[in-house]
Amino acid sequence: MNKTRLEAFSDGVLAIIITIMVLEFKIPHGSDWKNIQELFPTFISYGLSFSYIGIYWGNHHHLLHSVKHVTSGMMLANLNLLFWLSLIPFATGWMGENHFETNTVALYGVVLLLSGIGYYILQKVVEKNSHDIEALRIAFKISTRKGIISQIAYVVSIPLAFANEYISFAIFILTSIMWLIPDKNIEKALKND
Amino acid sequence: MNKTRLEAFSDGVLAIIITIMVLEFKIPHGSDWKNIQELFPTFISYGLSFSYIGIYWGNHHHLLHSVKHVTSGMMLANLNLLFWLSLIPFATGWMGENHFETNTVALYGVVLLLSGIGYYILQKVVEKNSHDIEALRIAFKISTRKGIISQIAYVVSIPLAFANEYISFAIFILTSIMWLIPDKNIEKALKND
Amino acid sequence: MNKTRLEAFSDGVLAIIITIMVLEFKIPHGSDWKNIQELFPTFISYGLSFSYIGIYWGNHHHLLHSVKHVTSGMMLANLNLLFWLSLIPFATGWMGENHFETNTVALYGVVLLLSGIGYYILQKVVEKNSHDIEALRIAFKISTRKGIISQIAYVVSIPLAFANEYISFAIFILTSIMWLIPDKNIEKALKND
Amino acid sequence: MNKTRLEAFSDGVLAIIITIMVLEFKIPHGSDWKNIQELFPTFISYGLSFSYIGIYWGNHHHLLHSVKHVTSGMMLANLNLLFWLSLIPFATGWMGENHFETNTVALYGVVLLLSGIGYYILQKVVEKNSHDIEALRIAFKISTRKGIISQIAYVVSIPLAFANEYISFAIFILTSIMWLIPDKNIEKALKND
Repeated sequence: MNKTRLEAFSDGVLAIIITIMVLEFKIPHGSDWKNIQELFPTFISYGLSFSYIGIYWGNHHHLLHSVKHVTSGMMLANLNLLFWLSLIPFATGWMGENHFETNTVALYGVVLLLSGIGYYILQKVVEKNSHDIEALRIAFKISTRKGIISQIAYVVSIPLAFANEYISFAIFILTSIMWLIPDKNIEKALKND
Repeated sequence: MNKTRLEAFSDGVLAIIITIMVLEFKIPHGSDWKNIQELFPTFISYGLSFSYIGIYWGNHHHLLHSVKHVTSGMMLANLNLLFWLSLIPFATGWMGENHFETNTVALYGVVLLLSGIGYYILQKVVEKNSHDIEALRIAFKISTRKGIISQIAYVVSIPLAFANEYISFAIFILTSIMWLIPDKNIEKALKND
Repeated sequence: MNKTRLEAFSDGVLAIIITIMVLEFKIPHGSDWKNIQELFPTFISYGLSFSYIGIYWGNHHHLLHSVKHVTSGMMLANLNLLFWLSLIPFATGWMGENHFETNTVALYGVVLLLSGIGYYILQKVVEKNSHDIEALRIAFKISTRKGIISQIAYVVSIPLAFANEYISFAIFILTSIMWLIPDKNIEKALKND
Repeated sequence: MNKTRLEAFSDGVLAIIITIMVLEFKIPHGSDWKNIQELFPTFISYGLSFSYIGIYWGNHHHLLHSVKHVTSGMMLANLNLLFWLSLIPFATGWMGENHFETNTVALYGVVLLLSGIGYYILQKVVEKNSHDIEALRIAFKISTRKGIISQIAYVVSIPLAFANEYISFAIFILTSIMWLIPDKNIEKALKND
């Protein structure tokens, strides 16, 4: 059983998730700049979620790189991850439309946390089934470290949103920046691959 | 004629079907938890349909694995299956928005039944054209057994919805769980492949 | 320059076109069967358009089969075809929502005609650039014959819609059935390929 | 690390961007030709944006052709490009719905400019990492020339929109035509490849 279709299906779902968020930009009927300014919170939350889906796609790419045989468990764990990620457009839209009110930021944190757990499960399933694990050991170590930091960040951000939602939002942005910075160690490990 | 494009097109359609359902989560204008709670039935029906499309994708994957040459009949049977599956987002939305009222649950059962028949037809067409059928014999036997159980479940669920819609809904959930449990026999048969 | 991405992009666009039509089924707020019955014309027009996009996908598949090198002209002709096909969901929705009123049926015929012309142009560009044309000669001859019949049917259906829209609609259905019937000659020609 | 998934993901996103614009054609409730005529500005802006996304897809295709190894920097630059392109449906819809009013045309120019910068960054990253640059040198030189002309055109079109929006719109159309005309030199350079 090859992994081509697992990748193709995941790429398709991720591409749609990342793009349908743009449908949340309800086109204003007026042509004043004011109409565009009102969309600013939606735009910021769109940019953040676009980064997160992009990061997940990149990590997914790295993760499946080491997979030779796709098992039913992997398919299931992959579907589970995609399910939680598919809720990001909703959480994004709710947050953007309500100008980052407490509840909406907390829910966004919850969805990020559940997606993170989904990714962790997939990683465990892949590790259990992978025989060629040596090649990606360093990549895994780093992404696990980043993963743990992210999960702690999300867990902390949820109650924090009830104190000050902008702190939580800042945590989301910092976490995404941590992931976007290319990791020299991964690059090196993969180059030697 | 190779099967790459048949798989790519099917993956694309299934990825879109599974993702556009999320557009049914109309983003509430308020930011109270109450607004989110009201979406709970929609969420449950989304989760169920997400599982079903995911299961169909997995089965489709297994089914086409044994195919060497794509015939016009296969293309037609595949299009027919995709057509019925494409109605699942509508049936899901109707059921979720109307809080599992009788008619909506019955219609959901009808769409599942028609999709099941569509899959059965595709399986028959593939079997007829496949020459390398030995390898997937066990997988086919099991999926046929599960398929028959599912079809009976859907047929029964439709009239049952008029007695008690929650029994029908429970049947849908149990059927999807039956499919989600990885089948050791299939795994083994495919490993020997 | 390989054709993989041309096929992948076209498959993506066709998969989205075929699936977003389902978003036209506005989910009714009531749960009466009456609510579903009102959607019947939309359903019929959806089924028809689903068939047409499916047919175009199949023909596109056959057509690009003979292509070795993708030229800029081919990319352009392909984009042109996809543009006209992308208007089918709109024409379908307009026809379904207005219960097959004269103008809507005529516009549907116009979009089918323009798509047909787009396909014809792509076929010509492919023929001009293909060196391995022998293998698909029979397939081409038949699809050209069917293509000419279809184009005549569309041209006739547009003015006819103003006399009786159901005659035009019947022509659309008959034309799609003509394409859906697998062509033994193509099958044979391709098997010898 | 191979480029298949980078291409597949980009193709998916571009296919969705090009197709969801069609959802902006709100289906009119009446069946008069007048209802269709009112959509004419939306149609024109759709056609223009369809061409632009199509051109970006073609250029992206050429650009990644020379890539052997995908780096994290490339993934990031690619995501950045897709982000700005994903705003084109919104800018298109705003412009079409408000009949090319000044602000909407200016914003459209801004989005085109930012997309152009995104593409330029991706090209630089690809160049830096490519070792087989000889083969695409001519293609690069031409696309760089066209790219510079386009960027100047967009920069000029933004203030011009406040004088006369139709001049800016004419610039957008002329720029897209410049790209659509197949470049004999690229064709030749690639044929020798």
